[in-house]
Amino acid sequence: MVIVMKLNATSEEIASVVENIESLGFKAHLSRGEERTVIGVIGDERPVEPEHFEAFAGVERAVRILHPFKLTSRDFHPEDSVVKINGVSIGAQSVIVMAGPCSVETREQLMMTAAAVKDAGAHILRGGAFKPRTSPYSFQGLGLKGLELLREAREQLKMPVITEVMSSQDVTLVAQYADILQIGARNMQNFALLHAVGEIQKPVMLKRGMMSTIEELLMAAEYILSHGNARVMLCERGIRTFETATRNTFDINAIPVLKTLTHLPVIADPSHGTGKWELVAPIARAAVAAGADGLIVEVHCDPAHALSDGAQSLKPEKFTRMVEQVRRVAEAVGRTI
Amino acid sequence: MVIVMKLNATSEEIASVVENIESLGFKAHLSRGEERTVIGVIGDERPVEPEHFEAFAGVERAVRILHPFKLTSRDFHPEDSVVKINGVSIGAQSVIVMAGPCSVETREQLMMTAAAVKDAGAHILRGGAFKPRTSPYSFQGLGLKGLELLREAREQLKMPVITEVMSSQDVTLVAQYADILQIGARNMQNFALLHAVGEIQKPVMLKRGMMSTIEELLMAAEYILSHGNARVMLCERGIRTFETATRNTFDINAIPVLKTLTHLPVIADPSHGTGKWELVAPIARAAVAAGADGLIVEVHCDPAHALSDGAQSLKPEKFTRMVEQVRRVAEAVGRTI
Amino acid sequence: MVIVMKLNATSEEIASVVENIESLGFKAHLSRGEERTVIGVIGDERPVEPEHFEAFAGVERAVRILHPFKLTSRDFHPEDSVVKINGVSIGAQSVIVMAGPCSVETREQLMMTAAAVKDAGAHILRGGAFKPRTSPYSFQGLGLKGLELLREAREQLKMPVITEVMSSQDVTLVAQYADILQIGARNMQNFALLHAVGEIQKPVMLKRGMMSTIEELLMAAEYILSHGNARVMLCERGIRTFETATRNTFDINAIPVLKTLTHLPVIADPSHGTGKWELVAPIARAAVAAGADGLIVEVHCDPAHALSDGAQSLKPEKFTRMVEQVRRVAEAVGRTI
Amino acid sequence: MVIVMKLNATSEEIASVVENIESLGFKAHLSRGEERTVIGVIGDERPVEPEHFEAFAGVERAVRILHPFKLTSRDFHPEDSVVKINGVSIGAQSVIVMAGPCSVETREQLMMTAAAVKDAGAHILRGGAFKPRTSPYSFQGLGLKGLELLREAREQLKMPVITEVMSSQDVTLVAQYADILQIGARNMQNFALLHAVGEIQKPVMLKRGMMSTIEELLMAAEYILSHGNARVMLCERGIRTFETATRNTFDINAIPVLKTLTHLPVIADPSHGTGKWELVAPIARAAVAAGADGLIVEVHCDPAHALSDGAQSLKPEKFTRMVEQVRRVAEAVGRTI
Repeated sequence: MVIVMKLNATSEEIASVVENIESLGFKAHLSRGEERTVIGVIGDERPVEPEHFEAFAGVERAVRILHPFKLTSRDFHPEDSVVKINGVSIGAQSVIVMAGPCSVETREQLMMTAAAVKDAGAHILRGGAFKPRTSPYSFQGLGLKGLELLREAREQLKMPVITEVMSSQDVTLVAQYADILQIGARNMQNFALLHAVGEIQKPVMLKRGMMSTIEELLMAAEYILSHGNARVMLCERGIRTFETATRNTFDINAIPVLKTLTHLPVIADPSHGTGKWELVAPIARAAVAAGADGLIVEVHCDPAHALSDGAQSLKPEKFTRMVEQVRRVAEAVGRTI
Repeated sequence: MVIVMKLNATSEEIASVVENIESLGFKAHLSRGEERTVIGVIGDERPVEPEHFEAFAGVERAVRILHPFKLTSRDFHPEDSVVKINGVSIGAQSVIVMAGPCSVETREQLMMTAAAVKDAGAHILRGGAFKPRTSPYSFQGLGLKGLELLREAREQLKMPVITEVMSSQDVTLVAQYADILQIGARNMQNFALLHAVGEIQKPVMLKRGMMSTIEELLMAAEYILSHGNARVMLCERGIRTFETATRNTFDINAIPVLKTLTHLPVIADPSHGTGKWELVAPIARAAVAAGADGLIVEVHCDPAHALSDGAQSLKPEKFTRMVEQVRRVAEAVGRTI
Repeated sequence: MVIVMKLNATSEEIASVVENIESLGFKAHLSRGEERTVIGVIGDERPVEPEHFEAFAGVERAVRILHPFKLTSRDFHPEDSVVKINGVSIGAQSVIVMAGPCSVETREQLMMTAAAVKDAGAHILRGGAFKPRTSPYSFQGLGLKGLELLREAREQLKMPVITEVMSSQDVTLVAQYADILQIGARNMQNFALLHAVGEIQKPVMLKRGMMSTIEELLMAAEYILSHGNARVMLCERGIRTFETATRNTFDINAIPVLKTLTHLPVIADPSHGTGKWELVAPIARAAVAAGADGLIVEVHCDPAHALSDGAQSLKPEKFTRMVEQVRRVAEAVGRTI
Repeated sequence: MVIVMKLNATSEEIASVVENIESLGFKAHLSRGEERTVIGVIGDERPVEPEHFEAFAGVERAVRILHPFKLTSRDFHPEDSVVKINGVSIGAQSVIVMAGPCSVETREQLMMTAAAVKDAGAHILRGGAFKPRTSPYSFQGLGLKGLELLREAREQLKMPVITEVMSSQDVTLVAQYADILQIGARNMQNFALLHAVGEIQKPVMLKRGMMSTIEELLMAAEYILSHGNARVMLCERGIRTFETATRNTFDINAIPVLKTLTHLPVIADPSHGTGKWELVAPIARAAVAAGADGLIVEVHCDPAHALSDGAQSLKPEKFTRMVEQVRRVAEAVGRTI
């Protein structure tokens, strides 16, 4: 941490900050410039927030030097983490494709879509049983019934399954049905839920909040790792910006930034990242070109009658074409699908 | 809903949309312009999302005509809702002040601060027992012990108490101690939690998410009302923007916009809305000048040693001065404190 | 400036940064922490950008310690600057009101509106002759004819006039007609224009860009001051955010932040800051409660037939009521109108 | 345009809107729903802004049906526009690479860099002579001397040259030296400048403003086309968001969105889009995978001593590797370099 004092900070104010630094077990390191005094905090500053020092009289601002995350940091774990699930390795040389309907609606809908995405080359089946919906009047998912259908599809097709868990109360239940638990964007900072999935031994895919910085995403992952579960993958799914031409702005920069900062695998969600099915294939290609370790894509056999997210769902034949295109891009960057 | 077809939409595509509209129980209303065909959906469109129609071939986009919220809408409930708690009326002529520490830390800290804010004119005591913290390494609150201290302060000072509930599992517990349950910004779309507080009969203060629109805030409130709890107040606490000079950008526009759209009381949080104690008093004055029904302010007897949010906490004497200033502004706009 | 080296930065990389710091005439100050080496740059760092050091191998990032502005900074000019124009003092005890139509349309429209705003208590007449319009198909202003009508109104009503200048080529012309030159939000970083108005001796009102930080606003003002013109006032007019319920998000925080950072007067524009006439009065009250030195408001006798900005223009009777309300708020915060 | 009336709009208010619609030469089309009356405006609504109707009593809001741009729209010009410059075709099958230093600093620096980028496969030389800089204390470019050096490099290496023009006054001058005139992000809505480049017959590359929507970018291009110059290409260079890990957020979605909405070529700028040289290659690959027609990249032989933008400049050997990677991605999507 570096603490910048105000122009007219008194020596008492400086002394009071230094005393506090030392009382917290750090060393203080003064540097008097022409205009300002700057105080360096020497030690592992992570447990302290800059705001702590900004409460002192005479302090203009405090700036972190170290990233606040540690377990998720590549600094302390230079090699890529690979998450293995029933023979599928995520974060390794091969790009992984997860696909399926936004919501599980009926057995027929799920089985048809699951078979189609498997045929097209998908490795993992996605499908929502518990659905976070902005409106209380929208379809909220089939719940337990949806989980049972997912298990059926999982067994029939021998594909691992990923599904969302929305509440800490449901973690144990969902973990009995799914191979990967998804934490949705709106729950990225639901700390009770992060705590709960940190205590089980199932892989977790943590989606970036639409309002969250990359640092906050890594801190949310840190919650899970610090509670004992290291099998975490991160998912970029678009952020909220002023642009309204698309539902979200897919933050393509986040992919190489995350690959630099962390050892965890990075998945891209071009369906939510754009909100429009026409844009899914180009953004899927872009994400893999930028270094994503996997994709998660919404596919529906009849998007016009989907109970959720129809506008961003690909039909199976379009999904098949997308996988073909992505495969060529993956090969161009030295990977496979 | 208005559905705009693409320039080259075929008559089959148009017919398919019309058929779907009618199958959902609405009437369709075609209007062929020089360039585009526009299809109006006649009926209560609220249960359908525009994305539903955007999944159809030939559709360029769909635009809502009606606001998606109903129970929270002033259209259907023109008079202001007043939430009454032990003799304090929120949403009526008098501006209500809630104040206290960010976190409950010790009995002494809480009692001293509570007495000070009461003396200064605050009506309701705030204090956090369960704390949502970005870092797993930060102080997470005293939990149950904090709730007990809050109850003690409540009884000793005869002040109603507001505190945050972070998980649907804790709702029953927190409701035994608090007069108002606060839903924090990061949980504004924790739908399991909204559902849970919708089923109890305690007032709820719902904070706007830092990157949630006003419409989403009203939809989150709609969840609570639609589950049976109408004693809801909304809280503007700053949104996330590109500006980094302040922790958040307090959306002052939201106050008159909310007062127009909804009958629910609107509270302003200038502490989180700015992140800096020097800015709390001017923004508190501004919020009341713009029409806020109440304020919630962080106060700490020794901000430099606060375990959270020290930088945005007022000392009691500064809070006293703030209440004086706000009182004069309230009178200038025809209200009292 | 503080330069944070990467975890594994070599001593050669550190030496190369130090050498560069010294070659630029600064002193370097090394601090080796447990994880990182941090290098302080001692001296007036303003001419150097952090990006300069981020180009060196082994550097993780560089952070400014000093604000990059100097002439506009209150650090070096603690007293408020007051801009005087024909007997009107801006930045002093009295809150100044500028009002008039968005665009000058006809002599009759201008004279009627000008007389009405003067009656209501406005001190300065606003009106656009050169109009920046998003669409080439929209009304672009009367140009020179508009300037002549403004001069006529100015002389008839004995009111100073403010109008926008859009191009460095027009500065001399506009300065012959107007008492205050306005730089619009879209031109805040039109450096050729800032340079040109820096070389004349007329007051300038610089509007914050809808995409600009407070620091960038102060740097744009620094351009004007550094070219010799110190009679500058700043205008907060709303920023662009994800919220679409209003045209812009009025950044109320910016008012007290600017009053802290700079000695220049701060004007608020609630018309553009909201985009809706119903919201103008509450935001005008809020801005004055937060410490604004003045207001600029769009008024039109017949908003439904205005050639621009009708939706955010007040009718004269509503403007009169707004001034009354603002006067009471001004008195509540110890000022007058 | 669709005009949504308020719930309680009177029949007089509705009649007044209808009358105005008809007086503007459109037809009005009433649709009375259960809750609201909606009025359709039939005709080419482009010259009218929604705000025009929002000024009428009883109107809740007005929504455009048609895109406000026409000359730039693919609706009216379905085939891709190809801009040809001395044998280089932009917008055709081959992906074009523009590269060179941010600023022209010295003859030696320019010639070395130009030769290096040509060797690596670049088609067009970029270099700034007039530099828009946030601070008046930063290097402002060599001006005319820079233009002369660019001409020298252009002739020596037989490469077309692109350089920025910052002011309408300089358009004629810059057009004598450059093959493509660049309008920078901060000038995207400098309408005087757009007007001026619309009247010359040189290709223009228009950069998207950092907080401009895609629609505003197309409207800015419409200014140029409507003044007679159709040789325009658009450039995505990153937008401003809440994320601070990168200088800007490269809006990858904008590439396929623009390719759908307009016939103009789309160029990607991964240097400004990220602000960090390590991220330039992955984002360049992503942009081409998403469908960009070209790239513009900052290259410097000695970034640590660059007078501007060192942190985002590639060294020639890294640029060479980037071109190799991009070439493979281009081939994977059916294009060449």
